[in-house]
Amino acid sequence: MPENKNLNNKSKMIGKQSLLFNSPPYIIGASSITGKKEGEGPLGHLFDAVIEDPLIGKETWEEAESEFMKQAAEKAIQKAGLTNKDIRYLLAGDLLGQLIATSFGIAELNIPFFGLFGACSTIGEAMSIGSILIDGGFADKVLAITSSHFAGAEKQFRYPLDYGNQRPYSASWTVTGSGAVVLSKNNSNDGGAIRVKGITTGKIVDFGIKDPMNMGAAMAPAACDTIKSHMEDFGLEAQHYDKIITGDLGYVGSDILIDLLKEHNIDISSNHMDCGKEIFDQESQDTHAGGSGCACSAVTFTGYVLKQLQEGTWKRVLFLPTGSLHSKVSYNEGNTMPGIAHAVIVEAE
Amino acid sequence: MPENKNLNNKSKMIGKQSLLFNSPPYIIGASSITGKKEGEGPLGHLFDAVIEDPLIGKETWEEAESEFMKQAAEKAIQKAGLTNKDIRYLLAGDLLGQLIATSFGIAELNIPFFGLFGACSTIGEAMSIGSILIDGGFADKVLAITSSHFAGAEKQFRYPLDYGNQRPYSASWTVTGSGAVVLSKNNSNDGGAIRVKGITTGKIVDFGIKDPMNMGAAMAPAACDTIKSHMEDFGLEAQHYDKIITGDLGYVGSDILIDLLKEHNIDISSNHMDCGKEIFDQESQDTHAGGSGCACSAVTFTGYVLKQLQEGTWKRVLFLPTGSLHSKVSYNEGNTMPGIAHAVIVEAE
Repeated sequence: MPENKNLNNKSKMIGKQSLLFNSPPYIIGASSITGKKEGEGPLGHLFDAVIEDPLIGKETWEEAESEFMKQAAEKAIQKAGLTNKDIRYLLAGDLLGQLIATSFGIAELNIPFFGLFGACSTIGEAMSIGSILIDGGFADKVLAITSSHFAGAEKQFRYPLDYGNQRPYSASWTVTGSGAVVLSKNNSNDGGAIRVKGITTGKIVDFGIKDPMNMGAAMAPAACDTIKSHMEDFGLEAQHYDKIITGDLGYVGSDILIDLLKEHNIDISSNHMDCGKEIFDQESQDTHAGGSGCACSAVTFTGYVLKQLQEGTWKRVLFLPTGSLHSKVSYNEGNTMPGIAHAVIVEAE
Repeated sequence: MPENKNLNNKSKMIGKQSLLFNSPPYIIGASSITGKKEGEGPLGHLFDAVIEDPLIGKETWEEAESEFMKQAAEKAIQKAGLTNKDIRYLLAGDLLGQLIATSFGIAELNIPFFGLFGACSTIGEAMSIGSILIDGGFADKVLAITSSHFAGAEKQFRYPLDYGNQRPYSASWTVTGSGAVVLSKNNSNDGGAIRVKGITTGKIVDFGIKDPMNMGAAMAPAACDTIKSHMEDFGLEAQHYDKIITGDLGYVGSDILIDLLKEHNIDISSNHMDCGKEIFDQESQDTHAGGSGCACSAVTFTGYVLKQLQEGTWKRVLFLPTGSLHSKVSYNEGNTMPGIAHAVIVEAE
């Protein structure tokens, strides 16, 4: 990608819906705290902490999710060598109605807070706004964080666990955990720098899918739209990236995405990766279409993707978490499930 | 307020949690679409449209709220003399779980979208992030919008209307409607300019209030915290502003706020205004503690406050919508109701 030499702020806007930062923020800390099942998956050894107790010592699923988020926030701040007071803004959200996992999870941090909702794309939205704050000189350091919890999500969106509902193969498994990223104006890492170079902000895309047991199909058109816009805005080919990483399309949605993009002559079949496919072992863990939930892309990014960039396995990736913008009410009222995907360019220097 | 002469971006950050913009965004368009009850209130003649049918031609309360938002978005864009394509970002949110009023309301606009949740403070959050995008050179024009609906909110947070629950006098009445603001890098109004000069972003403040029929008491401590931080950050006295305008504290919460601030030697008793107290006539409309909901502060700001600034009645105001960050689930699980308040400095030039 060409460097943006124009420092008068005018050229940050690229094409119709992208930004290229003048002073790309550094990722100086990140954390991943997950549940037991995630710890038993292929990426389990990479997470900062794997908590055996799904209630993490709390009394409700919602309080448990808050606790995952609290621990992930503290871990990321600590790994960045900072304290709460160094963080100017907190960008955070979760899947629960009125973001209660977030509100009760991060209140104690006492940091100015923007609440975000992008469903499972929230970490992409949080990193986008966080990068804007830093590149624009509005903050020196911000924390982007999100969470999800299998039991809380099932209770809210589908069926209580006790009901023992059968899950179709197109259904995904909500990841329990929380992932956090500390973005900074200056680098403080000993090793190489990892920076957010730009973003492509998603639009709401609605293909009319109505089945919450097949969220991959609902989100794939949004991922397609954002990737297509990204390539057009920057004038890039898909092969520019070592990996194009979607959030939680899973096995069903990933196949659809690859097919949809081919219709636009964009071939990501060789460099596409989906966090929902990586985080669980489909065969042995009985997770059907793969992982989902805000934490799916967040902990896969912080636990796995960042390490590949740090170790030089990959040099640049396009990370685009995907979200399905439905609720229990909208589903019960017969509405569709619109999708959204927020893309973030992350590069190792 | 002193002008910010330092254009190298370093001095945008003021104190611990405020920003002063180098190129304060202009408000070049705004809209207010409300329901019948709001139209019958003291501000009714000021709104762009008052819709008699609470379902606004739709089949559900949620779809109705989406329609209010759609019409408010279109009206604001039209009043700014723009089309959808001129808007670079949409900053939007509502009270419904997973923001379904927003997702289904603004999908057709086809604009890159950041979903926000600040409960009834959402218009303050949206105007804050919108102003950041413009001041930072990330957008030329953005739309900040939010909505709420009395029937949808009662159904979600309290009791179905058909149940005929009695409302205590501390309960507020959710405003039906939607308010939108178009922020721009350049002024295009014929009259004087109205600009967002700066912001103070709220923290989550939890005083342990647990009664969703008394949200004013839950939000007043957050409003107090943001006002106190604002005055400290900028070194201002409360009398600097012609009006300090809270969102929806109502009669109960406003009294608490004034008392709380007096403990910090800040006296806003002479220049405080609360949108929740303005929008309904307490006696004749049976609205008890006053109006609430995301639309309460949004339509009062766009319908009433902006006109006072345009007409020169007021020169500068501090607008701080307030939100109660609870959900039906958090309430049923015995949790508290944390509050938040996002302050925006709006001045006429």
